[in-house]
Amino acid sequence: MSTDSSERIRGRREGRRRASLGQKNRMATMIEMSQPLHELPVYELVSEMGIETLHQASLEILEEVGIDFYDAEALAILKEHGAEVRGETVIFDRGLVEEYVAKAPGQFTQLARNPENNMEIGGKHMVFAPVYGPPFVLDLDRGRREATLEDFENFVKLAYLSPYMHHSGGTIVEPTDEPVETRHLDMVFSHIKYSDKAFMGSVTSAENARDSVALAGILFGEEAIRERPALISLINISSPRRLDDRMLGALTVYARARQATIITPFILSGAMAPVSIAGTVAQQNAEALAGIVYAQMVSAGTPVVYGSFLTNIDLKSGAPVFGSPESQLGLFASAQLARRYGLHFRSGGMFASSKISDVQAGYESIMTMLPAVLARVNFVLHAAGWLENGLTAGYEKFVLDCEVLGMFDTFLKGMEISEESLAMESIRTVDPGGHHLGTEHTMRHFTTAFYRSELFDYNSYDQWQEEGGKDATRGASERVKGLLASYEAPDLDPAVEEALQDYMTKRKKELSAG
Amino acid sequence: MSTDSSERIRGRREGRRRASLGQKNRMATMIEMSQPLHELPVYELVSEMGIETLHQASLEILEEVGIDFYDAEALAILKEHGAEVRGETVIFDRGLVEEYVAKAPGQFTQLARNPENNMEIGGKHMVFAPVYGPPFVLDLDRGRREATLEDFENFVKLAYLSPYMHHSGGTIVEPTDEPVETRHLDMVFSHIKYSDKAFMGSVTSAENARDSVALAGILFGEEAIRERPALISLINISSPRRLDDRMLGALTVYARARQATIITPFILSGAMAPVSIAGTVAQQNAEALAGIVYAQMVSAGTPVVYGSFLTNIDLKSGAPVFGSPESQLGLFASAQLARRYGLHFRSGGMFASSKISDVQAGYESIMTMLPAVLARVNFVLHAAGWLENGLTAGYEKFVLDCEVLGMFDTFLKGMEISEESLAMESIRTVDPGGHHLGTEHTMRHFTTAFYRSELFDYNSYDQWQEEGGKDATRGASERVKGLLASYEAPDLDPAVEEALQDYMTKRKKELSAG
Repeated sequence: MSTDSSERIRGRREGRRRASLGQKNRMATMIEMSQPLHELPVYELVSEMGIETLHQASLEILEEVGIDFYDAEALAILKEHGAEVRGETVIFDRGLVEEYVAKAPGQFTQLARNPENNMEIGGKHMVFAPVYGPPFVLDLDRGRREATLEDFENFVKLAYLSPYMHHSGGTIVEPTDEPVETRHLDMVFSHIKYSDKAFMGSVTSAENARDSVALAGILFGEEAIRERPALISLINISSPRRLDDRMLGALTVYARARQATIITPFILSGAMAPVSIAGTVAQQNAEALAGIVYAQMVSAGTPVVYGSFLTNIDLKSGAPVFGSPESQLGLFASAQLARRYGLHFRSGGMFASSKISDVQAGYESIMTMLPAVLARVNFVLHAAGWLENGLTAGYEKFVLDCEVLGMFDTFLKGMEISEESLAMESIRTVDPGGHHLGTEHTMRHFTTAFYRSELFDYNSYDQWQEEGGKDATRGASERVKGLLASYEAPDLDPAVEEALQDYMTKRKKELSAG
Repeated sequence: MSTDSSERIRGRREGRRRASLGQKNRMATMIEMSQPLHELPVYELVSEMGIETLHQASLEILEEVGIDFYDAEALAILKEHGAEVRGETVIFDRGLVEEYVAKAPGQFTQLARNPENNMEIGGKHMVFAPVYGPPFVLDLDRGRREATLEDFENFVKLAYLSPYMHHSGGTIVEPTDEPVETRHLDMVFSHIKYSDKAFMGSVTSAENARDSVALAGILFGEEAIRERPALISLINISSPRRLDDRMLGALTVYARARQATIITPFILSGAMAPVSIAGTVAQQNAEALAGIVYAQMVSAGTPVVYGSFLTNIDLKSGAPVFGSPESQLGLFASAQLARRYGLHFRSGGMFASSKISDVQAGYESIMTMLPAVLARVNFVLHAAGWLENGLTAGYEKFVLDCEVLGMFDTFLKGMEISEESLAMESIRTVDPGGHHLGTEHTMRHFTTAFYRSELFDYNSYDQWQEEGGKDATRGASERVKGLLASYEAPDLDPAVEEALQDYMTKRKKELSAG
């Protein structure tokens, strides 16, 4: 690491320290980010035989009815590598699936602007990344409104400031005030400019994917990003059984550029899949495998992640339901399938159907997030900020979710069982009815013993009343303002910034003319 | 079953059906209660070696420093059965512990007034029971206030009306408007009168325990309750390392009467135990085993449950913290220890430190409840209504928690993997981009496919706004009123009721005179 970049890191740390002033409690904001390693047992909900049955069912789907690919180049690539192409439908025999799934690489590193924030994807590593995609934002002061680029930048800043948010994400919100054809440039630039964490690329077209790769190339160097990906991008499969031309275009570009992709069927049991979780998981598996096989045909060994975005609809209203027990079952089963193939796995998240950051949102969020932790999901998208079935990013919800991520970070460290942690000497010496507040053991561990949320209220009722009797969302509103007010951008080499700006200016001109 | 009692059951069902009118959605209230059977894999967080280390550490505590018993009769019983008594301190050698723990019985049945509501305690069975102990209640209309007998009765009614609340509980709230010396009679009577689910006895003294046994004897018959317990009662151990005279008095009475007890150290890491989870769990284990050994010395084979009420304090304020990651770790480890001894296990619950039913309360509740489910806790106390570290029972929180219990009920059914649930024919016949809304498979499963919460909002933002833009707690407030307005008591044999009343009148006179 050059002296220059070391200084940048020191500068960033100093910035964060300064950012922590003005906070109620300085401790948490002083914590440096560190990616959690999941060393706990993984919860295996479905029996091996059950997983085998689901696997076989998905192979049948791939062999009998196949998956549609709405892109001529993709169809040609598939045919060339041995898939059977019937019009736009592609049939995969099981040998072919096995052969190409095996080409997906093991654990890989995603580059971040600050090398200390490089992310390991796969194995026992977990990544928490922000909400992705909402066209609306919500905060207590201004209510719900269309998201803008300023909102986008704000969420990038909030993610940057949380030690429990490991990734800057992608389309945290949709900046609706920017032209559709150029906003991908603004989003990628914002991630680079306002954060030094890893980020995601655009998937709205092949061309936009090429722009994302070009910007990453300017930042990291074109050679460097072919060795280790600088982008991880979300390729959705439109269930049932189809990949559209925009997603395929982006997938092809990223696979060729050796940038990571997360192949994710967007699937709702009861609508795009059967009204049963087993059938939904089998269909999802067929779809995800088809996308992964295709990526490996484009470029064998290109980094991929098996994605799942699975829940059920409300059979009364037809709307998706988040935090449902059915989606928990689906999450555990999907993670097991991914592991069966040795593939890295992505799932959500702090999902909520609730429109606001109320008790419903709280229940719902943990209903998916805790299973994601116990299933050892490698890449947890939507780990903060999600509301209203993903239509809204909540400012208060974002910082609250980040605090809860800190709890999972602590949980993942597991339970130390050692002479020191058993503290037998303390137990022996504290009399019946006595207390451990002042023991030597307590003094040794006082500052680090327990995770402490700054936004959750642990005061007595009277104290809480005196301080305004606020619900947690109201407290979070103050926190959002404090964080944004104290935010300082991590240094960015002016020459790099200029090169990025030049590229954007040129491309914006071209795209607006087109 | 006599014709008479069958009719009573029909009467009760009819009552519930009528109770459901006036509700937004009739479906859920038509569901009959059924106790969940946990057939999923159990999450084993700690390695076998780790559990062995914790076990050995607790044996050392019992052998080296022991547990204090503040009751002369208890000390005599302990001495008589081979424990070493030094003043009020009792030392247990490991052979003695092993011998008496082995006498605790396997799975047993707790009687309910409606035999269909008898509860299986142990094995793969789970019981969800209401919050226990709060001196305050909270609702949106009246705010926080001291609990009264009317509140107590209201919560009994709400528990009775939920198909996902399996038990009527004990001191759901403390009826502070009744004299301390007689309120145990009113509580036990309310459980009998306003519900037909199983309930808990009083533990405030030996005498009050005897009253609880007497009332249960009138209801079920004295012979019947010696065969199968009609009461399950909560014996707290005051950590560190002591059992007080009131709890010991009650425990002795219940053990002799063959009524079930839950032996639960009340332990906060950092205060009554070391500032580390391993030390806290080891100490808790020693304390719980001491209580269980004592119960088996009083009456070998008397039904007991290993209880855990373990969390940590906030090291800033000294207050307990609920929903913490440390308490999750402790819960999983405690459940494993109980299983190691073949003992049934009790833990919480929908715990929250939050003062109100806000997003903090939602997060916190699932943070303990989902681990309780995955750890296969046999008796989940505080499964609904808990707020403010247990100082307050929330009306809205109670009905919201009950809805969430329905989600766990569905989760516990697991994922069916069968020809029918794989729905391959549907997957084959729905075209790419099509939908499953009208398939034969969907039509077959439409009404039962997914759990549907009535209190959670799944409408679009616009619909939600049109209906008042309410947070979930506001919706729950209406539900509470609707349920209480439509409540009808299950029939109680007038002769039995009279006998219960006579006993109460006599005892109230005696106790008030004393």
